[in-house]
Amino acid sequence: MPDLEVAFDAAGLVPCVMQDWRTGEVLTLAYMNAEALRKTQETGEIHFFSRSRNELWHKGATSGNVQKVKALRLDCDRDAVVALVEPAGPACHTGARTCFHNGELTPKAPYEVLPALQRTIAERAASRPDGSWTAKLLADPRLAGEKVEEEAEEVVRAVREESDERVANEAADVLYHLSVLLNTRGLTLADAEQILDERSR
Amino acid sequence: MPDLEVAFDAAGLVPCVMQDWRTGEVLTLAYMNAEALRKTQETGEIHFFSRSRNELWHKGATSGNVQKVKALRLDCDRDAVVALVEPAGPACHTGARTCFHNGELTPKAPYEVLPALQRTIAERAASRPDGSWTAKLLADPRLAGEKVEEEAEEVVRAVREESDERVANEAADVLYHLSVLLNTRGLTLADAEQILDERSR
Repeated sequence: MPDLEVAFDAAGLVPCVMQDWRTGEVLTLAYMNAEALRKTQETGEIHFFSRSRNELWHKGATSGNVQKVKALRLDCDRDAVVALVEPAGPACHTGARTCFHNGELTPKAPYEVLPALQRTIAERAASRPDGSWTAKLLADPRLAGEKVEEEAEEVVRAVREESDERVANEAADVLYHLSVLLNTRGLTLADAEQILDERSR
Repeated sequence: MPDLEVAFDAAGLVPCVMQDWRTGEVLTLAYMNAEALRKTQETGEIHFFSRSRNELWHKGATSGNVQKVKALRLDCDRDAVVALVEPAGPACHTGARTCFHNGELTPKAPYEVLPALQRTIAERAASRPDGSWTAKLLADPRLAGEKVEEEAEEVVRAVREESDERVANEAADVLYHLSVLLNTRGLTLADAEQILDERSR
């Protein structure tokens, strides 16, 4: 990774926002010193400096929930870091996916909705609960495919002749059924997003 | 807003990660003291405490680029805040959308791809460049609709009989054409995401 020229503070620290690369969720805010930053760059896994224990802290070394670094970004005055990561497991010591689980958690931020939908579908695929429409579709990819085509026709008709609310509802139906259909192949919307990114470059 | 019971540090400050509610982008890392937090909660607009100027800082007060607060979240030990915001304009004093514009910016994180696609389509809608396929679709909603239905059929066929890469490519085509179709009605995927969130509650 390139040299980042971080402006450490008087205590030799820089705050680091650890963010899930795939979902955008902010996972943890912690601090790096020069050694933690160097170790992070060398190993490709997040290292912080623990201010309470006054020592280097390889995040997830004990729990196995290491955080693989996909990119490091600095802000305009170079005194704050965003680390985009691929988590091997929960970021919080409580077992929560993110440390930021207190406060106003609902409604979800729009950016959180599609990743949450992918997780819900994966859970349904694992547990296959009786009476679940998602589980029924997962068990019958042909039906899931029919629904994708049907909902595509409906959003097109809604755009032609119905209200904004109807259009948004039909588009939601497309996104939901497309996500289920992709799951039947072990894929998620993130796979399609990667293609869109490649095309835009 | 509810009382947040923040654990301010010895200097009376708490770091605050300001994050775009719609896109998930981390915009700014700055600090709040008790007064900044109270003002933020009272006014619904982000207030920080400027450590360099040693004073309360109503973000965007001069530029007009205020940041409306949608939710405030605390981490597990209550000594860091995530503020989910709806920006009225760029968060960075350089005019960039986010302060974190240094470092490894490409490839995009998956979570950034669909919001970037919505922005690109909106730009094409504003400038209508000659020879742009997006501009051609935007000018002809019937064609955009035909493409949505056609790509839906293609992703279904790909799921039935083609490679993962083909499936991801066809799903990307659905997402792109659906986003263009929604734009012809002044909508984006975020409108569909809001519906999905309402349904999941």
